[in-house]
Amino acid sequence: MAKMIGPALPNLPWQDRPAGAKGPVWRYSANPIIGRDGNRQSNSVFNSAVVPHEGGFAGIFRCDNRAIHMDLYAGRSADGFHWDIEDEPLVFTGADAEVLRKEYRYDPRICRLDGHYYVSWCNGYHGPTIGLGFTDDFKTFTQLENAFLPFNRNGVLFPRKIGGRYLMMSRPSDNGHTPFGDIFVSESPDLVHWGRHRYMMGAIKSGESAWQATKIGPGPIPIETDEGWLMIYHGVITTCNGFVYRMGCALLDIDEPWKVLYRTKDYILAPYELYECVGDVPNVVFPCATLNDPATGRIAIYYGCADTVTGIAFTTVDELIQYTKETAL
Amino acid sequence: MAKMIGPALPNLPWQDRPAGAKGPVWRYSANPIIGRDGNRQSNSVFNSAVVPHEGGFAGIFRCDNRAIHMDLYAGRSADGFHWDIEDEPLVFTGADAEVLRKEYRYDPRICRLDGHYYVSWCNGYHGPTIGLGFTDDFKTFTQLENAFLPFNRNGVLFPRKIGGRYLMMSRPSDNGHTPFGDIFVSESPDLVHWGRHRYMMGAIKSGESAWQATKIGPGPIPIETDEGWLMIYHGVITTCNGFVYRMGCALLDIDEPWKVLYRTKDYILAPYELYECVGDVPNVVFPCATLNDPATGRIAIYYGCADTVTGIAFTTVDELIQYTKETAL
Amino acid sequence: MAKMIGPALPNLPWQDRPAGAKGPVWRYSANPIIGRDGNRQSNSVFNSAVVPHEGGFAGIFRCDNRAIHMDLYAGRSADGFHWDIEDEPLVFTGADAEVLRKEYRYDPRICRLDGHYYVSWCNGYHGPTIGLGFTDDFKTFTQLENAFLPFNRNGVLFPRKIGGRYLMMSRPSDNGHTPFGDIFVSESPDLVHWGRHRYMMGAIKSGESAWQATKIGPGPIPIETDEGWLMIYHGVITTCNGFVYRMGCALLDIDEPWKVLYRTKDYILAPYELYECVGDVPNVVFPCATLNDPATGRIAIYYGCADTVTGIAFTTVDELIQYTKETAL
Amino acid sequence: MAKMIGPALPNLPWQDRPAGAKGPVWRYSANPIIGRDGNRQSNSVFNSAVVPHEGGFAGIFRCDNRAIHMDLYAGRSADGFHWDIEDEPLVFTGADAEVLRKEYRYDPRICRLDGHYYVSWCNGYHGPTIGLGFTDDFKTFTQLENAFLPFNRNGVLFPRKIGGRYLMMSRPSDNGHTPFGDIFVSESPDLVHWGRHRYMMGAIKSGESAWQATKIGPGPIPIETDEGWLMIYHGVITTCNGFVYRMGCALLDIDEPWKVLYRTKDYILAPYELYECVGDVPNVVFPCATLNDPATGRIAIYYGCADTVTGIAFTTVDELIQYTKETAL
Amino acid sequence: MAKMIGPALPNLPWQDRPAGAKGPVWRYSANPIIGRDGNRQSNSVFNSAVVPHEGGFAGIFRCDNRAIHMDLYAGRSADGFHWDIEDEPLVFTGADAEVLRKEYRYDPRICRLDGHYYVSWCNGYHGPTIGLGFTDDFKTFTQLENAFLPFNRNGVLFPRKIGGRYLMMSRPSDNGHTPFGDIFVSESPDLVHWGRHRYMMGAIKSGESAWQATKIGPGPIPIETDEGWLMIYHGVITTCNGFVYRMGCALLDIDEPWKVLYRTKDYILAPYELYECVGDVPNVVFPCATLNDPATGRIAIYYGCADTVTGIAFTTVDELIQYTKETAL
Amino acid sequence: MAKMIGPALPNLPWQDRPAGAKGPVWRYSANPIIGRDGNRQSNSVFNSAVVPHEGGFAGIFRCDNRAIHMDLYAGRSADGFHWDIEDEPLVFTGADAEVLRKEYRYDPRICRLDGHYYVSWCNGYHGPTIGLGFTDDFKTFTQLENAFLPFNRNGVLFPRKIGGRYLMMSRPSDNGHTPFGDIFVSESPDLVHWGRHRYMMGAIKSGESAWQATKIGPGPIPIETDEGWLMIYHGVITTCNGFVYRMGCALLDIDEPWKVLYRTKDYILAPYELYECVGDVPNVVFPCATLNDPATGRIAIYYGCADTVTGIAFTTVDELIQYTKETAL
Repeated sequence: MAKMIGPALPNLPWQDRPAGAKGPVWRYSANPIIGRDGNRQSNSVFNSAVVPHEGGFAGIFRCDNRAIHMDLYAGRSADGFHWDIEDEPLVFTGADAEVLRKEYRYDPRICRLDGHYYVSWCNGYHGPTIGLGFTDDFKTFTQLENAFLPFNRNGVLFPRKIGGRYLMMSRPSDNGHTPFGDIFVSESPDLVHWGRHRYMMGAIKSGESAWQATKIGPGPIPIETDEGWLMIYHGVITTCNGFVYRMGCALLDIDEPWKVLYRTKDYILAPYELYECVGDVPNVVFPCATLNDPATGRIAIYYGCADTVTGIAFTTVDELIQYTKETAL
Repeated sequence: MAKMIGPALPNLPWQDRPAGAKGPVWRYSANPIIGRDGNRQSNSVFNSAVVPHEGGFAGIFRCDNRAIHMDLYAGRSADGFHWDIEDEPLVFTGADAEVLRKEYRYDPRICRLDGHYYVSWCNGYHGPTIGLGFTDDFKTFTQLENAFLPFNRNGVLFPRKIGGRYLMMSRPSDNGHTPFGDIFVSESPDLVHWGRHRYMMGAIKSGESAWQATKIGPGPIPIETDEGWLMIYHGVITTCNGFVYRMGCALLDIDEPWKVLYRTKDYILAPYELYECVGDVPNVVFPCATLNDPATGRIAIYYGCADTVTGIAFTTVDELIQYTKETAL
Repeated sequence: MAKMIGPALPNLPWQDRPAGAKGPVWRYSANPIIGRDGNRQSNSVFNSAVVPHEGGFAGIFRCDNRAIHMDLYAGRSADGFHWDIEDEPLVFTGADAEVLRKEYRYDPRICRLDGHYYVSWCNGYHGPTIGLGFTDDFKTFTQLENAFLPFNRNGVLFPRKIGGRYLMMSRPSDNGHTPFGDIFVSESPDLVHWGRHRYMMGAIKSGESAWQATKIGPGPIPIETDEGWLMIYHGVITTCNGFVYRMGCALLDIDEPWKVLYRTKDYILAPYELYECVGDVPNVVFPCATLNDPATGRIAIYYGCADTVTGIAFTTVDELIQYTKETAL
Repeated sequence: MAKMIGPALPNLPWQDRPAGAKGPVWRYSANPIIGRDGNRQSNSVFNSAVVPHEGGFAGIFRCDNRAIHMDLYAGRSADGFHWDIEDEPLVFTGADAEVLRKEYRYDPRICRLDGHYYVSWCNGYHGPTIGLGFTDDFKTFTQLENAFLPFNRNGVLFPRKIGGRYLMMSRPSDNGHTPFGDIFVSESPDLVHWGRHRYMMGAIKSGESAWQATKIGPGPIPIETDEGWLMIYHGVITTCNGFVYRMGCALLDIDEPWKVLYRTKDYILAPYELYECVGDVPNVVFPCATLNDPATGRIAIYYGCADTVTGIAFTTVDELIQYTKETAL
Repeated sequence: MAKMIGPALPNLPWQDRPAGAKGPVWRYSANPIIGRDGNRQSNSVFNSAVVPHEGGFAGIFRCDNRAIHMDLYAGRSADGFHWDIEDEPLVFTGADAEVLRKEYRYDPRICRLDGHYYVSWCNGYHGPTIGLGFTDDFKTFTQLENAFLPFNRNGVLFPRKIGGRYLMMSRPSDNGHTPFGDIFVSESPDLVHWGRHRYMMGAIKSGESAWQATKIGPGPIPIETDEGWLMIYHGVITTCNGFVYRMGCALLDIDEPWKVLYRTKDYILAPYELYECVGDVPNVVFPCATLNDPATGRIAIYYGCADTVTGIAFTTVDELIQYTKETAL
Repeated sequence: MAKMIGPALPNLPWQDRPAGAKGPVWRYSANPIIGRDGNRQSNSVFNSAVVPHEGGFAGIFRCDNRAIHMDLYAGRSADGFHWDIEDEPLVFTGADAEVLRKEYRYDPRICRLDGHYYVSWCNGYHGPTIGLGFTDDFKTFTQLENAFLPFNRNGVLFPRKIGGRYLMMSRPSDNGHTPFGDIFVSESPDLVHWGRHRYMMGAIKSGESAWQATKIGPGPIPIETDEGWLMIYHGVITTCNGFVYRMGCALLDIDEPWKVLYRTKDYILAPYELYECVGDVPNVVFPCATLNDPATGRIAIYYGCADTVTGIAFTTVDELIQYTKETAL
């Protein structure tokens, strides 16, 4: 039996596996939990991050408004299913006006680390790169330096230092709808300067696992287990009608996480339901956060659907690790 | 209170705003009003134009047949909701065989002007350009010269002369699925020769209003109000899975309409409903006509859905102008 | 009255034309007959072939698994509607290990010929080309040489020798989402060496029949009739949001089938239903097999829907030939 | 013997055909006549126009400066071989500040018409279009309205009214390195408003004359002869290493010049010499002007070489018309 | 000492290695041997094939005429350096009008085989494929069936049957400036039907040998030696300014020539000289034929230069095999 | 009079400005100084760096070998004109095998800093990024961490710490022939971790300075002067026949060098000479190093020509700063 490491989360949102469900992950029956109207100005709410906070839950949400401007908004929930999202975007303060100047912000992750909630996101600064900041209360937010040069997406921190250094996964990109993409890990002594960049894993060019043939990117904050870091990611294939985004899973070495122990050949979730197949960008499931209860092994995955709405899916650490090993590439 | 200028239209098709509707525009509850089977040979009926005529309504419809050949067909309706569309395409007569030679015709507009009904459309003549003609009875049609050289789309006349000249908006294009496009205004003394081309407004390259970042094009005949010309247009963004077409609105100077007074940063309608998101071209709303009742301020917008079927949406001049000002870029 | 040539098939799956149906082909009311879960590992089941076998029916199915690996699986059915598909892919034996080495296999056809069931498919061999093999019992399968060099798709045999030679239709391609494609016929004395390649018909570059403007490819095994070979094919148009696949029909000369007697200007079936418009590749109907009953003239068409599920549609030889002649280009 | 119509030009620059020269056109032995250093700031001088003026010659030159900004400069010459080009670009005056606002200007032509020297060029106005102006003394210049909407290049006037209207050839384009292009003729009553656009001739898509397979465009002002308008144009092919520009010739109907009487299948001049094959854009010959002496039938062609320098080539009206007829498509 | 197998050719054109020459191949000092004016209508003469014939030499030449139409012309030479090329293209006769219909023909090879001179070339038949024919006297030519379906280039026969079958190398392509390409071998019992297609070798995707990273294709008829088939080929890299074509060499198994024994990591000749770097397509050396003298080991390579003119280079069987082994990948 | 800061270099290679030379920079009359045969295996030698060393000069050279593999080689020279380049590539040692693993290396720069010679280059590590190392004697070399994630090119160090930090300019890129590119500055406390990335300057999208419209990148190590950092860079335009690389110059704030004081609108050197216009990549001048003599103000620029050979050009600090100010954007 695999074990997650960390505090119990007894109020984790949960629904048991329905009869007849196949695969290691199953959807919440009342999906989507957040529709287009997540806040007053939203066109769509998706690719968002949540954490336990003050007995309930807090989150940072990507709400594209009706100008299709991409920005981040704070939200709160008592049960993890029903969310109250603010109507005004996050305001960061910090040292340097150059960095604070805002172009666009999307696809946030939240990482509990060193007693703060660190937020990373795709930040517009002469092209997409990785923005970084932190909060303690989801009311005031401090922005740090951008982690990298453009062009980059999907900056995902590890939830503790490893070897005395902070670690961040990311996916170097171009400045468009990037048709390629591998995952790297970078280190930092201070969350400002980054180096020692390591290749972790890439798209699968062979036909062996075609759903991840075009590009891959890290998803939620990796989950520490006694078997390694459990890491959910997205994979993309190019069809004659565009990209399809699906979810996969990997198990990483606990001390040198750029070493991939196992990685799923099969996807763990794919667009099947109408709210995943139809929307502003059809055929997308895109995970950005999990809630984990080490006491029971339960995991709730928050994921964007068709770049339009937000859903939850469920699994357990046992099922996911077993599946990752069984279907490993 | 803004006022539309023109004759009352008491039998304008109408449905009150439903409780809970957001935004300045709301859909007809029984949409689509015209399905794929609009006439005997149609694969799809969309991007079409209507006007009041002889106590009821007349229209010019884009019906793609089952060879996916694009052509224009006349139709009539007593109430504006239920339409009887002819099975044979429009036949134009006119002076010059070279211009009458037909390649393809699509996306019509109708403009009441100088006592005639002028029809403009995208006309195949060694590439797409703007065809122009007129009718008095929707039975016989006279074709004029093409207004411009290829490549152009979305020729939309103003409903009266301005400064003694006819004015037409259009969008210069290329000969494919054009990935760019701004709106210009051109003038003519005689509806044959066109000049004094003026740049009106363009796609928004910044992220400030990304739904209109790829291209924009004029929609229905502009509506004269005491605050300027009210002009509904379409805007396009390029996602990794193709184009999404949405609707916006602008208010133009009454005497120099190439001067844009206000322009919505937010869209006013976007593909949300299944009949807008699923069809031959997913994720398209495309407005080509309005019916207006200055007595009540009511406006009915006719729009194509997913390049497949036709819907109606409603608004009022007050709501639309207020929204245009409030969300102006 | 046109007549199909061949043995009667009294248990052909069938449903009468519903009232109000338009066009020469109508859908089975309980479509799709095979969903995503066609076998234990399938993500999708589509573009598959069936034949009468031992009083019931046998088939070769394209099942993409959850790694989106494309492979072929045998299946059986008593009634042609309900199918039992194996969980392990076909295993071919044969003389040459070089050819047996498997990369990927998709879009099969089955042709009863010389007392065997010949299977042809798109076979990965340094790029897509036409794989060829045969079975007598759908349990053991013998693979022959690839028919052509890469790059090719849609190899479709004729069900008897013509002029003492075997004939195969195919569509030369490139190694991606080919944006062009015409149909050729090739001859062979031995099903190993192929030559005397003849152009049959191509995409329609004019706007006259735009649904088949990008590329076309042969579908089911051609049906022998007293008026010529009846051949159902797919045609593709490029919209701003990708490809749309529809079905057309042609009548070929009985002795020199590269001579096209008639070919539909209008499609005979197009994506209208939600299971055809929504899926891993939206807006696809793709026919790969028919069952035919010469005694009644009935034809059941098996076709892939949205590259995700499998449907049946019905027609008769009379309706189809009449429609092909009436709407001929 | 064909005859040019117009005044004699006894001081036309000239060099007899050298022994051994093939083809209807031969180069000046001291080419290029203008090098990179045509004026003080020039990077390159090419694609330029000249006319007889005050007993000598005047010209408008495209000089790209060392910022590679494209602009027009006046120049003078006593003999047509040696040119003195100004260091400051043309300054136009005129009624409308919007049009006078200068983005870039290139590839001029000069047309003696109605007692003025009309200058047309490719003018930047939200994309390339046709700028138009005139001068009487090559010192002061008056700018008129742009003739067309973007996107257009190579506006070439006819040197007299035809049917009471001004005529201009042009080539509709896109806003990049346009990979297509046909020639049209447009009419105007006033040189401001343009209409009655007619297709004249296009690229040759068959392999019959592949040097002009990608696009064509009009070159110098057409030459009036007793057999029709003699018109030199450029044609472009796309190789794996880019475009190659060559010269062809056509004979047009004298009253309806959109009717092409003859057009060369073979080019009349192509990049052979080092100064035509090597430069900022290799493999370009691009004609923009001729000087003509009807008394002797002599023609001097001014053409840009490799988008870098300027050359002269020679022919006679007899040789050129004979060749155009003999090698007609 | 490696030995070529075959009859001596004492009058092979030859020039000794000049002092200071590097690499295994050296150029003829008077290159190019054929200029643009190879025959009366030629724009360029390149990528051509020669054989010993009647005590002197005969050849088939690719001459693009001044319409840039690509066709084949016969030529004769007493010494292999000075060539007399006919002004009219080859005329083939044969059984089937469909195949004889000519679109375009280029890049010929000639193979002495079974007492005939077989000619293969890139033949336009609804796209490029491999044309095949033969002659005994270079006066009358018989055309056979095209060897393959489109799209293919560089069909090169082996000069004797192997295992009782004819063998041909070729490179499957697309219908444009193909950006990929590997070499295959196919077999035939009758030179009409082809099968048993085997992958021989491909482009080198790693940076180890980047000059052949985009595509490769077979060049002259392979040379039989006591160490295997010696085969010269071309390799292509894509720079930011287009393709560069260079020459490489391989040694193939004598009985199963799809097995590559050695293959040069380094090119053996590359565009260095002005006539190779400047022309209609800059930076191309493209070999299509060799003359071989087994008595001395001398080899003369005929190659196209910059798609414009024709050159000769020299080597010996010893130097080439030694270099191929020493620099093998 | 501007002054360079640093030690005198009396033996700097030099040639006085020839009579008639225009522009701020003039070529060495005996260019190229290094031809294709720079070392035993080289196909081409270009884009290389030099420094004063032990009374003479040392350099790191990009030699592409005859496999077109890109690598770095040390060289020495007594006079800066004549170079002796090693036949074996640089061997780095260092702590981490992952970073030492070599894919390809090109376009080096050398920076004297803190008493070492630091070498930076474009380093293949799952795509191009910036490699970094140092030497003291040009015999043994120590490699450090790659400075950035892929994709990046043209990493250029400043020759002293500023504000207590190391600074490096670079140009984020994609993984192909990048069609875009701006210059950024990054800071580091330790030459391993990099952050505080600042936008310095970008391509000029307007037509005002089109030679640098596609992308720009830093060239030699910036030169410290009493007016700021003098920085030579390359700029690229996209013609219809590919890229043209030219040189420009900027003056940067001495303490905050991301602030650009002046930047040339005009290029300072462009491909004019045959060895710059013809070669493996036509039309390239690419500067990678300067030698500077503060005592006289003389500067020698080393630059690659046509990606094939190496040249020197000369200027003085006064001329260059004056020109930069006079032609500033």
